[in-house]
Amino acid sequence: MHRSRGPRPTLEAVAAHAGVSRATVSRVVNGGAGVRSEVRERVRASVDALGYVPNSAARSLVTRRTGAVAVVIAEPESRVFSDPFFSRQLRGISRELAERDLQLLLMFLEERGDSARVSRYLSAGHVDGVLMFSLHGEEPPLGGAAEEAGLPVVFGGRPGWPGAAADPGLLYVDTDNRGGGRQAVAHLLERGRQRIGVITGPLDQTSALDRLEGARDALAAAGAAPPPALDGRFTAEGGERAMARLLDEEPGLDAVFACSDLMASGAMRTLRARGLRVPADVAVVGYDDLEPASWADPPLTTVRQDVERMGRIMARLLLRRLALEPDEASPSPVVTPAQLVIRQSS
Amino acid sequence: MHRSRGPRPTLEAVAAHAGVSRATVSRVVNGGAGVRSEVRERVRASVDALGYVPNSAARSLVTRRTGAVAVVIAEPESRVFSDPFFSRQLRGISRELAERDLQLLLMFLEERGDSARVSRYLSAGHVDGVLMFSLHGEEPPLGGAAEEAGLPVVFGGRPGWPGAAADPGLLYVDTDNRGGGRQAVAHLLERGRQRIGVITGPLDQTSALDRLEGARDALAAAGAAPPPALDGRFTAEGGERAMARLLDEEPGLDAVFACSDLMASGAMRTLRARGLRVPADVAVVGYDDLEPASWADPPLTTVRQDVERMGRIMARLLLRRLALEPDEASPSPVVTPAQLVIRQSS
Repeated sequence: MHRSRGPRPTLEAVAAHAGVSRATVSRVVNGGAGVRSEVRERVRASVDALGYVPNSAARSLVTRRTGAVAVVIAEPESRVFSDPFFSRQLRGISRELAERDLQLLLMFLEERGDSARVSRYLSAGHVDGVLMFSLHGEEPPLGGAAEEAGLPVVFGGRPGWPGAAADPGLLYVDTDNRGGGRQAVAHLLERGRQRIGVITGPLDQTSALDRLEGARDALAAAGAAPPPALDGRFTAEGGERAMARLLDEEPGLDAVFACSDLMASGAMRTLRARGLRVPADVAVVGYDDLEPASWADPPLTTVRQDVERMGRIMARLLLRRLALEPDEASPSPVVTPAQLVIRQSS
Repeated sequence: MHRSRGPRPTLEAVAAHAGVSRATVSRVVNGGAGVRSEVRERVRASVDALGYVPNSAARSLVTRRTGAVAVVIAEPESRVFSDPFFSRQLRGISRELAERDLQLLLMFLEERGDSARVSRYLSAGHVDGVLMFSLHGEEPPLGGAAEEAGLPVVFGGRPGWPGAAADPGLLYVDTDNRGGGRQAVAHLLERGRQRIGVITGPLDQTSALDRLEGARDALAAAGAAPPPALDGRFTAEGGERAMARLLDEEPGLDAVFACSDLMASGAMRTLRARGLRVPADVAVVGYDDLEPASWADPPLTTVRQDVERMGRIMARLLLRRLALEPDEASPSPVVTPAQLVIRQSS
């Protein structure tokens, strides 16, 4: 190993030398998980050639200096607290971390300024790894700051930004949202429903988009036209409003697939207010199978995903990246199944 | 200033030399807010005499090195997420911190082991200050670890451990829980109710105890006996169960004061299940004036506390301790008012 005599080489210089992305260099420096052995060797050769020294945040990984894991949720705290999805997933994460005596730090990303501040905190070496939720939009969250700081990251939900699908090192846990959407609408078709509307989540999230695609799959397979669809923002109030607009635009609607139980509960409020019976006039199917599904009157047909288990799997993937779990193979993304649960609302 | 020649002097040594508590030394080292000038001078003289050097966590305060504030909630995350009280208070805190570009880190304290881990993280210099909620029991939370690490702490709710009332340096934000409890029960008495039960929170919390004391005050002022009271754990399910037991033990009950809106909503479920009308058979008064009060059917008479504002005030007190807010006087505890809001349930 020989060192260059110029200024201290950067991650960028190593990436350019090896002909790979900065994220790939970061991954190799942190153990090489998720990187093909051929690429790993090339990066290591460049690290040696340039005499690159990882920064302190990256080094802290090796020693587990902080004993803490950040959970970053890209939502305002009011939404995080009103949707049982997050509390259930956090329960899975916190149990898994507590078993290894790791501290969970919860942070919210609401506004543009929050992103710079969270990036700064994560980059300053206060945590050993990051779990990141509720991705929106077209860019990697935090501009990739966590990865550049050498922190392993696991995403909740499949990342959707350009290039994400081709990146073999991205780690995430997802459910089969497309399959779930397909089951929901196929069930409504089987029950003889003919004019089915969809209340989606924000379509800049892959989970929302995939559920809608699944609904379209089921209708296409039956030779039917794509459904009318409106965004209910994954909130009860959004579901209430979207249902009202769907009924205004399609008075003959006889079924609705709401892509979360919370939105389904809002939709049922609107149906009740308009004097429409569930399921006699309009059948309703939700998604999640969390508390709002069992509170609903009538109880809600929905698509179950085991949210607490997803949280546990996310934490375990991170632990493997942190090499706290003895493991030979590199960790890879996990997609858990979705399962229709039929109750009275359909 | 002269230094002793022995081992490096500890905080304990300074405390013993000055004849004050460790917490007082810590406060003086961190600016002296909340400490009488005479005591402050004595501690500073001992610091000089022994050559005490504050630890790195304490020094980080001066430079605001981390830019982060920990919010520690001594509850399982499932309870934090199901009670709108916490999300509302967090909203106030996060807005106030965001305005100063400070990062909020949320941590839960659920089991005994969590306490050691959180203490370790806080003591390791990863945060500049601590906001602490939902205190239980008879001891300072985290065994005083945050204070010993030189971190300023502000409590949500009046601390109740022995000696807390006499400690002039303790900072907290509370509402007038005793006055609120008094108003709630005085109102029921004015409406002619004669057999009033109370559903309390856990009585190891001062907020729960104070509301019950207020209820007793109102009954004593009317010459009535103390009320039958059962603990509903501040949850909807706990309120449901406590209401059932109160009705079993006191079949003639004509009113109930539930010390949170969530418990009141649970109590109303039990009354409905037993075929009792609200308010005709049993009048109900809650506490908080948050979402469950407006969802209730009939709408709930309750005691309003401005929870978001309490969160803002907590953050501001901490900022003053951190000396980010220009301020001449030392900060002192704040008690906000409680106000009865009369609706149909009573």
